[in-house]
Amino acid sequence: MQQKPQIGIIGGLGRMGRWFKRAFEKAGHEVLVADLNTPLKPQDLVQDCAVIFVSVPMSTFADLVREVGPLLRKDQALIDFCSLKKRETEVMLAHTSCEVVAAHPLFGPGEPHLAGQKVALWPARGQFWFRWFWDFLLSQGAKPILVDPEEHDKTMAIVQVINHFMLLALGRLLNEAEVPLELVKELATPSFARQIDILCRFADQDPYLYGTIQYANPQGEEMRQKYLTLAQEIAEIARRKDMDAFLKIFRQVQELGRRLKTEGS
Amino acid sequence: MQQKPQIGIIGGLGRMGRWFKRAFEKAGHEVLVADLNTPLKPQDLVQDCAVIFVSVPMSTFADLVREVGPLLRKDQALIDFCSLKKRETEVMLAHTSCEVVAAHPLFGPGEPHLAGQKVALWPARGQFWFRWFWDFLLSQGAKPILVDPEEHDKTMAIVQVINHFMLLALGRLLNEAEVPLELVKELATPSFARQIDILCRFADQDPYLYGTIQYANPQGEEMRQKYLTLAQEIAEIARRKDMDAFLKIFRQVQELGRRLKTEGS
Repeated sequence: MQQKPQIGIIGGLGRMGRWFKRAFEKAGHEVLVADLNTPLKPQDLVQDCAVIFVSVPMSTFADLVREVGPLLRKDQALIDFCSLKKRETEVMLAHTSCEVVAAHPLFGPGEPHLAGQKVALWPARGQFWFRWFWDFLLSQGAKPILVDPEEHDKTMAIVQVINHFMLLALGRLLNEAEVPLELVKELATPSFARQIDILCRFADQDPYLYGTIQYANPQGEEMRQKYLTLAQEIAEIARRKDMDAFLKIFRQVQELGRRLKTEGS
Repeated sequence: MQQKPQIGIIGGLGRMGRWFKRAFEKAGHEVLVADLNTPLKPQDLVQDCAVIFVSVPMSTFADLVREVGPLLRKDQALIDFCSLKKRETEVMLAHTSCEVVAAHPLFGPGEPHLAGQKVALWPARGQFWFRWFWDFLLSQGAKPILVDPEEHDKTMAIVQVINHFMLLALGRLLNEAEVPLELVKELATPSFARQIDILCRFADQDPYLYGTIQYANPQGEEMRQKYLTLAQEIAEIARRKDMDAFLKIFRQVQELGRRLKTEGS
């Protein structure tokens, strides 16, 4: 393809929408934007753009796809940015006949640029636009990751659901325990100082999105309960002062730590 | 004082003992070491050293202090490195008449040097050796922190007990959930990648010490139960898909994050 395709972003006034608009424009693409109060409507974007990104809250995603999907021609593409992928991909496949790419940018709009960031991708229908987006991400120094939507959601039940869940509980404890925050910070070990840094990153995130991630992930409830059960077992071992049982668990987690260090990317 | 005092470390072959031996020697101190199989015994150190550091497992600490404490003269100092401070300080005060400094190095032996590291300190009896150790730490670029033993233990019930507790539960979940570790790493968000880094640091730590921290902190059980209760409430809110309740909690934790960012050190 010689000419850069014109890009449409539905939900283009949201934080992630604006973030990607800037990234596409920096790379020389023309970007049209539709949102609740823009002069252009989703239908206008479908008219003028080769590829349509959908960057809307997951709660309104299905309705939007039902409305816009049927308007898209076979040579166009629909690419979503939802934090969950299985049901969302099924909705897109059911309501359009164009190419469909399932995408999940694995970062928030607080990051400075695409370079170094990961985007989970799946070619739900067709290869042309999938390859185009994959190559675009590579060209920006980002890291596209090929992952099946179901595997994605299952993994995110730990990576996002449990991570946010355990941090939120820690945040509530810090709020409710009668320990001065200043002292907590002063006495923070290198490990806990890092934990506080992670917690502070919440300040920059979208509460609605984080709520949706908790309740909409199909494995979320199961993982939360599993986490609580495993934590309760540790609490019981500590209450009994059962050092042997504790050492066994600790060493298993140390071994996991060593595998995490050497494995993968 | 013109001459550098000779330092004795009981438990000087342990990892923290060796670590501080190196740090003291680098600063020009002569250091004598006693441990289970050394030619020098604790009694020999008491004979020859102005200041005695105790860097032994908390499980053997009280017995050791009962044995060595009465041998120390009033112008000497006993300084401990226990991860807990209230009961440990009381034991020292009860069994010696020399100066007593309660110290807790807030880092592990995996750190490269004293510069930048924190050490919690309390002058349990006397000021001379307390000032000497405080100034030594400052001279090495470390950060001594004055904190009452009881406040210390209460704060550590979050900074260490809960931090390790929530990370151990996460480690167990990663071990037991049927999600490939490689995918977890690949799909890690910036937040979760940091969480994995913290977890990996366990590989370098002493399992016994971490067990003792869990079961010996006087507030440990209360904090673990409080953490579990707060986490269960979040799980229940997510199960009910109660977005309003979730938003309220999330925003409280965001507000905490903002306070943590601006407050203290």
